[in-house]
Amino acid sequence: MLNVSIVGGSGFGGGELLRILLNHPNITIKQITSQRFNRFPVTLAHPNLRGATQLKFSSVEDLEECDILFLALPNGVSQKNIEVYKKIAPKIIDLGADFRLKDEESYTTWYGTHSAPELLSEFTYGIAELHREELRTSNYVACGGCEATCSILTLYPLVKSDIVKKDSVVIDAKIGSSAAGNKSSSASHHPIRSGCLRSYKPTMHRHTAEIEQELGTELGNVHVTATAVELVRGILVTVQVFFEEDISEVDLWKLYHSAYQEEPFIRLITDKMGNYRFPEPKLLAGTNYCDIGIEKDQRSNRAVIVGAIDNLTKGTAGQAVQAMNIMHEWDERLGLEFNGLHPV
Amino acid sequence: MLNVSIVGGSGFGGGELLRILLNHPNITIKQITSQRFNRFPVTLAHPNLRGATQLKFSSVEDLEECDILFLALPNGVSQKNIEVYKKIAPKIIDLGADFRLKDEESYTTWYGTHSAPELLSEFTYGIAELHREELRTSNYVACGGCEATCSILTLYPLVKSDIVKKDSVVIDAKIGSSAAGNKSSSASHHPIRSGCLRSYKPTMHRHTAEIEQELGTELGNVHVTATAVELVRGILVTVQVFFEEDISEVDLWKLYHSAYQEEPFIRLITDKMGNYRFPEPKLLAGTNYCDIGIEKDQRSNRAVIVGAIDNLTKGTAGQAVQAMNIMHEWDERLGLEFNGLHPV
Amino acid sequence: MLNVSIVGGSGFGGGELLRILLNHPNITIKQITSQRFNRFPVTLAHPNLRGATQLKFSSVEDLEECDILFLALPNGVSQKNIEVYKKIAPKIIDLGADFRLKDEESYTTWYGTHSAPELLSEFTYGIAELHREELRTSNYVACGGCEATCSILTLYPLVKSDIVKKDSVVIDAKIGSSAAGNKSSSASHHPIRSGCLRSYKPTMHRHTAEIEQELGTELGNVHVTATAVELVRGILVTVQVFFEEDISEVDLWKLYHSAYQEEPFIRLITDKMGNYRFPEPKLLAGTNYCDIGIEKDQRSNRAVIVGAIDNLTKGTAGQAVQAMNIMHEWDERLGLEFNGLHPV
Amino acid sequence: MLNVSIVGGSGFGGGELLRILLNHPNITIKQITSQRFNRFPVTLAHPNLRGATQLKFSSVEDLEECDILFLALPNGVSQKNIEVYKKIAPKIIDLGADFRLKDEESYTTWYGTHSAPELLSEFTYGIAELHREELRTSNYVACGGCEATCSILTLYPLVKSDIVKKDSVVIDAKIGSSAAGNKSSSASHHPIRSGCLRSYKPTMHRHTAEIEQELGTELGNVHVTATAVELVRGILVTVQVFFEEDISEVDLWKLYHSAYQEEPFIRLITDKMGNYRFPEPKLLAGTNYCDIGIEKDQRSNRAVIVGAIDNLTKGTAGQAVQAMNIMHEWDERLGLEFNGLHPV
Repeated sequence: MLNVSIVGGSGFGGGELLRILLNHPNITIKQITSQRFNRFPVTLAHPNLRGATQLKFSSVEDLEECDILFLALPNGVSQKNIEVYKKIAPKIIDLGADFRLKDEESYTTWYGTHSAPELLSEFTYGIAELHREELRTSNYVACGGCEATCSILTLYPLVKSDIVKKDSVVIDAKIGSSAAGNKSSSASHHPIRSGCLRSYKPTMHRHTAEIEQELGTELGNVHVTATAVELVRGILVTVQVFFEEDISEVDLWKLYHSAYQEEPFIRLITDKMGNYRFPEPKLLAGTNYCDIGIEKDQRSNRAVIVGAIDNLTKGTAGQAVQAMNIMHEWDERLGLEFNGLHPV
Repeated sequence: MLNVSIVGGSGFGGGELLRILLNHPNITIKQITSQRFNRFPVTLAHPNLRGATQLKFSSVEDLEECDILFLALPNGVSQKNIEVYKKIAPKIIDLGADFRLKDEESYTTWYGTHSAPELLSEFTYGIAELHREELRTSNYVACGGCEATCSILTLYPLVKSDIVKKDSVVIDAKIGSSAAGNKSSSASHHPIRSGCLRSYKPTMHRHTAEIEQELGTELGNVHVTATAVELVRGILVTVQVFFEEDISEVDLWKLYHSAYQEEPFIRLITDKMGNYRFPEPKLLAGTNYCDIGIEKDQRSNRAVIVGAIDNLTKGTAGQAVQAMNIMHEWDERLGLEFNGLHPV
Repeated sequence: MLNVSIVGGSGFGGGELLRILLNHPNITIKQITSQRFNRFPVTLAHPNLRGATQLKFSSVEDLEECDILFLALPNGVSQKNIEVYKKIAPKIIDLGADFRLKDEESYTTWYGTHSAPELLSEFTYGIAELHREELRTSNYVACGGCEATCSILTLYPLVKSDIVKKDSVVIDAKIGSSAAGNKSSSASHHPIRSGCLRSYKPTMHRHTAEIEQELGTELGNVHVTATAVELVRGILVTVQVFFEEDISEVDLWKLYHSAYQEEPFIRLITDKMGNYRFPEPKLLAGTNYCDIGIEKDQRSNRAVIVGAIDNLTKGTAGQAVQAMNIMHEWDERLGLEFNGLHPV
Repeated sequence: MLNVSIVGGSGFGGGELLRILLNHPNITIKQITSQRFNRFPVTLAHPNLRGATQLKFSSVEDLEECDILFLALPNGVSQKNIEVYKKIAPKIIDLGADFRLKDEESYTTWYGTHSAPELLSEFTYGIAELHREELRTSNYVACGGCEATCSILTLYPLVKSDIVKKDSVVIDAKIGSSAAGNKSSSASHHPIRSGCLRSYKPTMHRHTAEIEQELGTELGNVHVTATAVELVRGILVTVQVFFEEDISEVDLWKLYHSAYQEEPFIRLITDKMGNYRFPEPKLLAGTNYCDIGIEKDQRSNRAVIVGAIDNLTKGTAGQAVQAMNIMHEWDERLGLEFNGLHPV
């Protein structure tokens, strides 16, 4: 049993991580910090865990040494204290944005000045499907952003294949409210946010930087648009790609099967009947799956690739646990067995 | 006061039309037909009209002559009985798909064989912003499809300007459940449809034919993808366009102002503050507005144009009443004054 | 045309009032104040009014004399400045809680110390169905609370009849999120508030005081429980009453018809078919109706009386306009003609 | 490993049961029947199980002998074929209503004529918290109705204590759409059902019979009212009780602690802070918990007791598995470990 602590554990990502780790057979939760909820039961912030744990929040100042430290902090906080965290644990898995980008200049462009740029190269980007081998030997992992994770997994087999026209890949992302975190604002006020279709980032979505980092040497600019929809958990990306030469839907499926057939958390949705012929985020709430579907346009050289995840699980905490499992050569699925509910 | 009747009045489009016409100062509703609800009060199908009318449904067999006949029928029904309807009223406004396409071949491709193709050319396509002059002298009008109407209005000023790259215009439409009509099915069953993000037409959306008809001589193929979202009324189209040469956001706004500044039902959403910086369909429920917003990508030759309507009002019944007003040289806004609710 | 100003116009009640008054034929809006949005267009707070008005918010310090002053302020604010407001306009209609209760002791119990208790008796409680005659000659009106309004109207005919058992009347209120106002908090944060069934006031709901004031001499304690549900606008009250002696459903309907048959904004929902056999708040969004339904239990001396309103319209701003119309001997329905949407 | 089959496995209850049993360590699923989906993969009806099973539906005619047979059939079907089912398995657990009532006359009153009334006495009512000892030796179990289960568990400690006034217990139940099953109708059509607060059973709810059976010797009539709310999974019951003599909230909690302290699936929600101070069904989706909260009215001899469950889990399939575990002297929690999600 390894001892694990979570820094910044009162947010949605931290709560989802705690939920997963409480069910993980190889893990003991040592501490979970929250400045706001210090000394209160974790169930005050995460009421779903009533009956599952008696843990209380600690202050970050009281953090003790542990085997693995998870960081679930607002953007910009991890980088300021990273040297402290490195002394606490030999392995760090960061759920935030601070160490995702390899290139300092890119970080500056999208987020501002980085306070520990020399460490950017020490972190492995956390998407197992792209970086499994690196993860096996990594001590520091930066999990992908939720929207980026969904987009990267949805596009990766195509980009590897080099058949897509550069410069016209369009990613239309539909995103639930939990992706904006647990801090309330007028934008998240229920009467305002309810039933909305808010074009909150038509262009310049920060996750573009990650997508381009992971896929971009083979693409030109990636064109991301993000719309907030009536949903709490979940992201759907509707990706439009145009091909240099025409390709059949069957051949597209072959590319995806070839890339993902061994992946425990990628499901290719090929159903031709029923109401769930394409990926549907609500089926994925609490699961670590990324579901992918394809429809080739019969009238043109276009295909629509659709991908879905739970932003808090595969998009954040589940991805982190999957990475942890790989780092320790455990079964990659440990703690991530929940298969989702229907109807829901 | 002109006498108006509605054929197929128990559906959502027919109900919205009745709601609007009951408030129209120049109109008396003569008959409204429903085979299923014949002789029952219209409020059984349209409970919002309780207190506003004592009307009962009639059978289509009992239709009497009137001044204007609205058809709110399932696809394929109007064309079969069009000769009958022409005898009942000198002016016909069809809310369905039967007479929208000018080209018989196009109709056959998207819908199947037409039973009155010789009449296709007699109908004016009902979007006032494109066909106002024709409408003034038309006796037969075919209103645009809801998704098509939103897409056409959102793209029209750009297409007229000839600055957009052909063949890479992508329309990602998010659509509420009322657009699928009032007939229940497993797909519309609340536990299934609730909270969904269903990619129900990634390609081959039938409204593509209309969009290409109205805009297409200047575009190549239009690439439409439609996703059902958690919403009852409303459509949002997120349109991605790429420019031949770079253009500033200010110049894009000028194009739209120039095209639409006199339009009573187009609002250009230019707010830079607040939670409603882009069009938001929920604000439009029951209104005849089409709201349009623009964001030029600073990193590329792309812009995102966002358009929103209420599918049952501007997308169906409101469009029909606007056309009727024009046909009779009345104030175009008569009956369409409702400005929408907030919060909602 | 009378000049009207609104103090505290950036909230949900103020916005709904502005929406209604902009359509009122006898009214000109002179000023609408907001400290937060001073000098900004009203459409920044009320985006549904885009295209309907060019008004900007004023500061309360700049208020000028007018014919009617509406107060749409947080609880406790009106009473502090009431002497100032009385100098600005000869007629005041308060949408808040400060002057609803006649009894200072009751106010103290439920809200705390009142700073102008001598004025409590000068205000007429604003529910027209109970106080129409008083309103005709009133200069000062305090509109009922939204939950209280719905409960009072639902129970009034029964209480007048003196057939209900005292001390066992139970009001179970289901309430949308807009009733809590436009200020965001963790309780209104979308991921938390969405899909909730929150028992936020099982007992001790403040509106109990008003209900008992208006109905209570003939009842004992009224037992109110309030649950927040997934809805933005709307209240449903499910009222359980037990009778001293058995009574038929027909006789209950007679009581309600007798009490309300002349009322323009009360609808008795007697349908025995369809999906809307009982009042349904979503049909009432934006309308001034209170819908009421009845079911007598065949097995006992119990009946269930169900009432629904839009909390922002009949429950706040619509009630205020109805009172204003009565105070000026105008048609009671002026400005309140909107009949609601379906589906929605 | 015991072999288990499910009859009627394409419905929501059958799907939830399959989900749970696939994770149960002592169980192998032998067959799951559906006439409509015979030979199709179970994931066509239960898409959440993609990746978890390769099972296909069987026809009921092809049922083979097994150790335990679960019946998840529409009301009235189990009783017609019960003799067949008894030959297939020595233990039967029925999720439907056919064998819940002990009294044939009561069954006739609420449901109509029973075709196997002689078997009513052979079935144990499935709520473990009331019938654990009987379940240990039962071969035939009839699980409680979802609304009844929630009401019974919420009221049971009070009723045992004999301090509640008879004849004025009111149960106001708020119910999600999945409780009405997977068959679509105009009532479940998304545009109609969405956002509704439908008083679908103000009186005469069938589950009243079960509640009175389980609690009723000590109560008089139980007064149930059911309202359909915007939610897929979940029931909240708001129960109003009046006491013969006044009692403190602390003493009420003692009653509940005393009754339920050993129960693995009852949680008493005593939080005085945060947004989840009372039971909230959305936290319970997929869990077997029944959460209970209490608020004593300071002004009267009333208390409000609030209970919540997931209608498909504790209200149907989870209850069935809990009963199965008890029947086999397994750990009662096997297969039912999922603790729920937040936010959701």
